[in-house]
Amino acid sequence: MKIVFYGANAVSFQVGLSDLLAIPNEITSVPDTVDRKAQDLLNAADVIVGVHFKSPVTAQNAQLFQLPAAGYDQVAFDALPFTCKVCNAFGHENAIAEYVMSALLSRHVPLAAADAQLRAGSWNFWAGAGPTALRTELGAQSIGIIGHGHIGQAVAERAIAFGMAVHVTNRSPVANKRYNAVYSLDQLNSMLSAVDIVINTLPLTSSTVSLIDSAAFAAMQGHCVFLNVGRGGVVDEEALYEALASQKIAGAIIDTWYNYPSDACTPHRPATRRFEELSNIVMTPHMSGWTDGTIARRQATIADNIMRLAEGRPLINQLN
Amino acid sequence: MKIVFYGANAVSFQVGLSDLLAIPNEITSVPDTVDRKAQDLLNAADVIVGVHFKSPVTAQNAQLFQLPAAGYDQVAFDALPFTCKVCNAFGHENAIAEYVMSALLSRHVPLAAADAQLRAGSWNFWAGAGPTALRTELGAQSIGIIGHGHIGQAVAERAIAFGMAVHVTNRSPVANKRYNAVYSLDQLNSMLSAVDIVINTLPLTSSTVSLIDSAAFAAMQGHCVFLNVGRGGVVDEEALYEALASQKIAGAIIDTWYNYPSDACTPHRPATRRFEELSNIVMTPHMSGWTDGTIARRQATIADNIMRLAEGRPLINQLN
Repeated sequence: MKIVFYGANAVSFQVGLSDLLAIPNEITSVPDTVDRKAQDLLNAADVIVGVHFKSPVTAQNAQLFQLPAAGYDQVAFDALPFTCKVCNAFGHENAIAEYVMSALLSRHVPLAAADAQLRAGSWNFWAGAGPTALRTELGAQSIGIIGHGHIGQAVAERAIAFGMAVHVTNRSPVANKRYNAVYSLDQLNSMLSAVDIVINTLPLTSSTVSLIDSAAFAAMQGHCVFLNVGRGGVVDEEALYEALASQKIAGAIIDTWYNYPSDACTPHRPATRRFEELSNIVMTPHMSGWTDGTIARRQATIADNIMRLAEGRPLINQLN
Repeated sequence: MKIVFYGANAVSFQVGLSDLLAIPNEITSVPDTVDRKAQDLLNAADVIVGVHFKSPVTAQNAQLFQLPAAGYDQVAFDALPFTCKVCNAFGHENAIAEYVMSALLSRHVPLAAADAQLRAGSWNFWAGAGPTALRTELGAQSIGIIGHGHIGQAVAERAIAFGMAVHVTNRSPVANKRYNAVYSLDQLNSMLSAVDIVINTLPLTSSTVSLIDSAAFAAMQGHCVFLNVGRGGVVDEEALYEALASQKIAGAIIDTWYNYPSDACTPHRPATRRFEELSNIVMTPHMSGWTDGTIARRQATIADNIMRLAEGRPLINQLN
């Protein structure tokens, strides 16, 4: 089986994969920018592991295009052979939920400030300092989760353990007695107006583009904190910027963006509007799911699908 | 019922208490340093709410000394009338568990660094940057919890939601199928050598003084992170300092200390050894349980006990 890892992201999943395969395999890698030699390797590959694919790049013999990631909006299915199966991978949900809970807790627990002060001998945050030192609890907050897929469920699980009230908006019905309320997508704004924290976990599709628009931000409460760990394009850039700049909402934690660099080494602004000039946003570069655990879980998925392909069994997470 | 709030910490619980009482009440407060007028008020009080009490201060008519806190090592029971009941209060466990999980997550999720870099256009933490950007997961860690009281259980609940392996050492047996292992106090060092994270939640008593000593730190693994949210004195100061300074363990998160200030306004070092010169410690000034939620939950306990006293019913959390 000829397997080609295509691009810098995919190459992260290459080391150790061969050990997971019980069949003869020949594994190579090619960079994001495809030259003649890389194109020859892609055309000869049985399996391509990658996060993007579009013309004029070709993959004439590919039977499986395996994403080592969930989002497939950068893959042009019609640039692949008609018979090529396209599959994605999850396994990032625990990592993303840790990012989310860490970001939310940091709004309530002033660890860095307290540490800096106590090192200088100052006890301002001490319980003995009285009511001025009191902080608030994340557990007293309600969270509205848009999308009840792998990520939404992992966030909900942890939020419940903290005592938070969990609200969910989802395309299909959700039954979970531990949730305070469940809404259809038509009722999204009802949820947005009811909760203290809103998190988008949706992928980018034709039906989710700019789903979170100025009307959505208008529905949120003034103390609301908004997170995006889905895809940037699900949230209208201008509406997000205006909601923050005008302090319509209290703050945002944004991991997914509008403009991505071609490589990590070149300085690159993630949006047209200057979010970096705002103080009520935490900006991170699409890192929430990027852990060693995610790599291991996705490698297991990749190896599983390659073995399924080799043995003629049904693939998992097939998208076409 | 004459109720006196004694000291700055106690006064934090005063506002709103009267509304929770269904009996006539007369509420006053006195400072930590007791003058003649304050002494008269304490002697006339039926109920004293405070976190410390010792001779030569007296409370001649007190029927209830109610701590608005858990730790009672600063209360000299024999300085109170023989018939005075002493009770403590909890309700801080959710707050402390939030502090603990926030501190632990911050070791895995580099939010502040990623934010600072992306504001400057740098994408070093981006998934697309490849393996160099990978972080680790808290959920892959095991935690050893010393003490299975309110705090230990609240930490365990959240750790399990993150997928962590939970080990518990407790004086009395603990049965919980979701825990990976349970140890008696005699087996403490077995637990210490088995886990990635160790947290002390024990109060200070004659049997817990310096329980965590140099032998305990020697038992821990080199990558171990140690937390203390119990009482400072449960952990031998010299042993803790040496374990950190010599990098015997990877790091510590310490909220409870050896030397406390008389008030929060005077600069004060929390220990004899200079922990503030170490880089592998997060130092906070006994703040982990100090939230508006803790105040509300403890006020409910205080009011409940005052009503029980007034109506001759058994008190809750009685210590003597």
